[in-house]
Amino acid sequence: MAGNSIGVSYRITTFGESHGLSVGVIIDGVPPGIELQEQDIQVEMNRRKPGQSAVTTPRKEGDKVSIVSGLFEGKTTGTPLTIILHNKDADSGAYSNIKDFFRPGHADYTYHHKYGIRDYRGSGRASGRETAGRVAAGAVAKKILEAYGIKITAFTLEAAGIRCESIDLSIIEDNPMRAADAAAAWKMTEKVTELADIGDSAGGIVQCIISGVPAGLGEPVFDKIDADLAKAIISIGGVKGIEFGTGFGAAAMRGSEHNDQMDKKGFKTNNAGGILGGISTGADIVFRAAVKPTSSIEHTQQTIDIDGNETEISTTGRHDPCLTPRIVPVIESMAAIVIVDHVQRHRSQVSG
Amino acid sequence: MAGNSIGVSYRITTFGESHGLSVGVIIDGVPPGIELQEQDIQVEMNRRKPGQSAVTTPRKEGDKVSIVSGLFEGKTTGTPLTIILHNKDADSGAYSNIKDFFRPGHADYTYHHKYGIRDYRGSGRASGRETAGRVAAGAVAKKILEAYGIKITAFTLEAAGIRCESIDLSIIEDNPMRAADAAAAWKMTEKVTELADIGDSAGGIVQCIISGVPAGLGEPVFDKIDADLAKAIISIGGVKGIEFGTGFGAAAMRGSEHNDQMDKKGFKTNNAGGILGGISTGADIVFRAAVKPTSSIEHTQQTIDIDGNETEISTTGRHDPCLTPRIVPVIESMAAIVIVDHVQRHRSQVSG
Amino acid sequence: MAGNSIGVSYRITTFGESHGLSVGVIIDGVPPGIELQEQDIQVEMNRRKPGQSAVTTPRKEGDKVSIVSGLFEGKTTGTPLTIILHNKDADSGAYSNIKDFFRPGHADYTYHHKYGIRDYRGSGRASGRETAGRVAAGAVAKKILEAYGIKITAFTLEAAGIRCESIDLSIIEDNPMRAADAAAAWKMTEKVTELADIGDSAGGIVQCIISGVPAGLGEPVFDKIDADLAKAIISIGGVKGIEFGTGFGAAAMRGSEHNDQMDKKGFKTNNAGGILGGISTGADIVFRAAVKPTSSIEHTQQTIDIDGNETEISTTGRHDPCLTPRIVPVIESMAAIVIVDHVQRHRSQVSG
Amino acid sequence: MAGNSIGVSYRITTFGESHGLSVGVIIDGVPPGIELQEQDIQVEMNRRKPGQSAVTTPRKEGDKVSIVSGLFEGKTTGTPLTIILHNKDADSGAYSNIKDFFRPGHADYTYHHKYGIRDYRGSGRASGRETAGRVAAGAVAKKILEAYGIKITAFTLEAAGIRCESIDLSIIEDNPMRAADAAAAWKMTEKVTELADIGDSAGGIVQCIISGVPAGLGEPVFDKIDADLAKAIISIGGVKGIEFGTGFGAAAMRGSEHNDQMDKKGFKTNNAGGILGGISTGADIVFRAAVKPTSSIEHTQQTIDIDGNETEISTTGRHDPCLTPRIVPVIESMAAIVIVDHVQRHRSQVSG
Repeated sequence: MAGNSIGVSYRITTFGESHGLSVGVIIDGVPPGIELQEQDIQVEMNRRKPGQSAVTTPRKEGDKVSIVSGLFEGKTTGTPLTIILHNKDADSGAYSNIKDFFRPGHADYTYHHKYGIRDYRGSGRASGRETAGRVAAGAVAKKILEAYGIKITAFTLEAAGIRCESIDLSIIEDNPMRAADAAAAWKMTEKVTELADIGDSAGGIVQCIISGVPAGLGEPVFDKIDADLAKAIISIGGVKGIEFGTGFGAAAMRGSEHNDQMDKKGFKTNNAGGILGGISTGADIVFRAAVKPTSSIEHTQQTIDIDGNETEISTTGRHDPCLTPRIVPVIESMAAIVIVDHVQRHRSQVSG
Repeated sequence: MAGNSIGVSYRITTFGESHGLSVGVIIDGVPPGIELQEQDIQVEMNRRKPGQSAVTTPRKEGDKVSIVSGLFEGKTTGTPLTIILHNKDADSGAYSNIKDFFRPGHADYTYHHKYGIRDYRGSGRASGRETAGRVAAGAVAKKILEAYGIKITAFTLEAAGIRCESIDLSIIEDNPMRAADAAAAWKMTEKVTELADIGDSAGGIVQCIISGVPAGLGEPVFDKIDADLAKAIISIGGVKGIEFGTGFGAAAMRGSEHNDQMDKKGFKTNNAGGILGGISTGADIVFRAAVKPTSSIEHTQQTIDIDGNETEISTTGRHDPCLTPRIVPVIESMAAIVIVDHVQRHRSQVSG
Repeated sequence: MAGNSIGVSYRITTFGESHGLSVGVIIDGVPPGIELQEQDIQVEMNRRKPGQSAVTTPRKEGDKVSIVSGLFEGKTTGTPLTIILHNKDADSGAYSNIKDFFRPGHADYTYHHKYGIRDYRGSGRASGRETAGRVAAGAVAKKILEAYGIKITAFTLEAAGIRCESIDLSIIEDNPMRAADAAAAWKMTEKVTELADIGDSAGGIVQCIISGVPAGLGEPVFDKIDADLAKAIISIGGVKGIEFGTGFGAAAMRGSEHNDQMDKKGFKTNNAGGILGGISTGADIVFRAAVKPTSSIEHTQQTIDIDGNETEISTTGRHDPCLTPRIVPVIESMAAIVIVDHVQRHRSQVSG
Repeated sequence: MAGNSIGVSYRITTFGESHGLSVGVIIDGVPPGIELQEQDIQVEMNRRKPGQSAVTTPRKEGDKVSIVSGLFEGKTTGTPLTIILHNKDADSGAYSNIKDFFRPGHADYTYHHKYGIRDYRGSGRASGRETAGRVAAGAVAKKILEAYGIKITAFTLEAAGIRCESIDLSIIEDNPMRAADAAAAWKMTEKVTELADIGDSAGGIVQCIISGVPAGLGEPVFDKIDADLAKAIISIGGVKGIEFGTGFGAAAMRGSEHNDQMDKKGFKTNNAGGILGGISTGADIVFRAAVKPTSSIEHTQQTIDIDGNETEISTTGRHDPCLTPRIVPVIESMAAIVIVDHVQRHRSQVSG
């Protein structure tokens, strides 16, 4: 029972390897009659694509969107929407030297043990390239959410140890780190570039805010909205943690501090991050994701080969020195997919 | 599309409200021929039950385990295993005063908005009582995992701001906080009791270690082992965050620090928490869960009633001042359920 | 990946063996706010129960319905509805002689080979007793469908080689065969009783008519409404075939005969059985199910024991000489479950 | 909750419309390490493709198989296998006249009512073209089953009222009807051609034999092997009924006739069609499917337009006068998909 699908009513299945013919996604459960163009998806693909700045890899991906089914005369038909992205700039040669080695921090070792065979070129299925299908499906989800007034915005809250001290959502797309604090963004860029120059990489934290969500989304007791968001976000390569509202900070709080009291205008605070009992409260859903430093670094590291012999490895090639800027649209996409899914799931059981 | 089931091959469905006739669980996918007695489940139920100490609620739950199907002559038959726990000490009267009010930190408001109707007695379906079914299913899962040499141990790492400074798994069941550091346990107990005395509550962090997991479990790209653990753990009421390995700490690390290098003996460090690319590495799976302070406190808090009028509320009744000791077996159970599920899922696609 | 659940949005999981403590069902996805009493379910259970007449087994089943969760103050709450039926008249002794033998026509041999262990008492999980959970879930489904004006009626069209020559739905509950033609019912009863007297059994055909279904239900291309009905009906023990509309009769027809032409009032004929392209047309959904003769007969038959030795067996005990009368409510129930599921599934993707 | 996927462990999702850019399938759950070439799939696609003879449509479909993911150096990798077939000979113009009309026997009316929008070109998603993805996935399934010694053979048992009087599986691919009786094949061809000449069409019956299936496959009580086969086969456009073993013939049989007795060599008869209690017995699985006459005929028929006005329609274009020859590989494919799925499902719960 493989696991390449997510969602129940808005269900996506991604496919493709980094250096195969193409990557893409099938979305089953798109409502009929939604106006959609390839350009709607292209804009999100462009946010995800490599080579946008000094802090992202110069590798060029052929992210030209092609919708091959489910669309007729500019509208969705309710049948499976298939989006394909052909792989173009696939420099497999650069990877052939890793064929027999397990790169530290990568999935080489685990894919080898799970399947007994792996497409080692550019990390194959475990490549960040796989997220292209997620972003395509997320773009469609965002389009659907527009009609509900639901908006999803993620940004780099922290990178390389530098944290935003204020949050201004309007500047996110204006700086290469996709940070929400211009001054912090500047420092992050500097620090990340510095690490890149010495062949190293940086981790970070991405925050996501979902506004306009009505109260009532989420399906207790297992498919709670936070449980499903957690799964969707942790399923992104490189994400090692997630927290909602005050999150880990709640551990040191008292009930009298953490409980969000209410008055006529609604919740007076939002320590819960917009979710109680796994169901949305109507307040902003707020979560943060921990992003590990990029595994591909030029530092010489100890490892073993597929025969168990000890050896050393240094990953050359083109890689992001910090993943947060390009993970931002991926996190927004996964969040959008979960929210649309839950809008449709809720409507299924509770009509009207 | 309600969400009361979790797992694919080892799939559980829980049912029941806090003050209904009974709570319980159906497990579909239990391997045939497993030796099982009600007592195997009872021991785990006893770890979860209230009234174990000063830091847990004195409320008595009727956690007498009854296996009503799927077992024949002391062995599982492969058919659905149904476990029922009859509710006994259900003091509904104590809750009737909350019928029309939304308690801060509780799911009252969200259930009301989602379903338009709610069983308000003892939080109904949103009660911690629901976890009894999880623990029953977890006990069976642990029994299955024994044969694989997989062991799951959770403990209170932090409570009320006090953190274990060393980890000794052998003492967990010897202190009321289920902490892994005797000195810290003592301080936690003192601090939590102090908060309980003033009608307040404390949050905490639970750590979980899964040892003996073979390399290869987890189904990319969405049903990664960490993604499924994240969903399972976040689905537990009161859990607000999860992190794997160094987790949020990875945000401030460099790739050269975070990558786990390998030699002939295996991974030299375990910053990844036993998971790479969503697949187990064979090292211990390690995660931490953030637990919010108990919402039911005696402090007077501002809220509204179901007609939107402002009012004040103070939750009386019997409640745990800190959830971590009793959440420990629930976290172990959810982890066990996920691991068994993935053992069986892996075997489905990859034979031999 | 066991298979004890069916449905996606209205999803049922049955449990229990013939001679275990109880059988029952959990329904996940019941809409909140539906008025429901145990009596609503009891009336359907009574239609299914044994001992109703000379053509059904005199065995008494303890089909006293108990709703243990999901109901509050007479209304469904949207949480899992659990219905339990305690087994009472469980005469296990009568079955101990079949412990080591495979009865012809029964699932003894296949359960033994699948699981390596089987609860042989009264056929265990493979017993017709399992359908009690289906009928309970079907009763709730029928209650939900009432509000949509959807009505489901099944009847014995043929038994022991005797076929109804006319269809009068009003008389079904008035004759022991649940036939729709009084004269045929009389002959069927006579013939079946005759077979019972010589220790043999009879097969038959049940027809089902679902009226009031709106156009648009069914999810191409795999979860077509006829595909899901086929699965649900064939999953009933003893059913060996299903056909829609003219069914197998269509094989000998021409397109010009089979195509249902339309005028302003709708479809002029209903050869399609109310379904085109897997989606309901708005006309009555009509299908027929082939029911094999009861496997438990007193005739001496050749078989083998679990060690492969040849032997003879004659099934004593109390059994229906013809299954159709008691399968009628089971077929209605499975049909109702599928229709509610599809009403909710359709609403999920297509709002309004 | 759309329904474009089928299977649990070997799970396929098809996509594409008749006149869109392409049709195809994603298969999730393919075992790793299976040797596979596009040619393995192409041979099955060629059996399905139009224009093979006088009794199939002369329309040319561009069924050139392209595997775009999941394959590496000639072997499957365990990741999603995606197979795409580009649409080439798409003569949309021929269909523009049906834009506003509902053709009798077609899904025009129901798609219109379900989605409010439809891709009317060549029946869009409801076209037989959709089965190309099924056949591609079936070819892979057959490849997997080879290693288990499981073989699936379907053939035309009856067409235009003419039935095979003997069964010779070796001649099926030698006659245009894919019948198993040379004399009957000749008569069928003559009769079908005759009907085609007068602008009419013929129905038929396809029989399928699955040999080499081990005892033990099938997941009671809902995902029985016959229940899942029924769903898979009925989900094929044009199939209106299915029966197992003696099927509807069982209705007129007695238990003493229908029960398959056993001796040391196994079952002495196979009235059950290789399935007892929803689990395979080890005997051949045998079923028959009723296929309606092709809906597209040149006869003038009464219908209505999308505004409800009465009108007449005559379907021109290129169509099969009888569907059975080309449905044969589709039925084999769906059967293969179900069997592989159940092999993998069984292994999940019951190891070794």
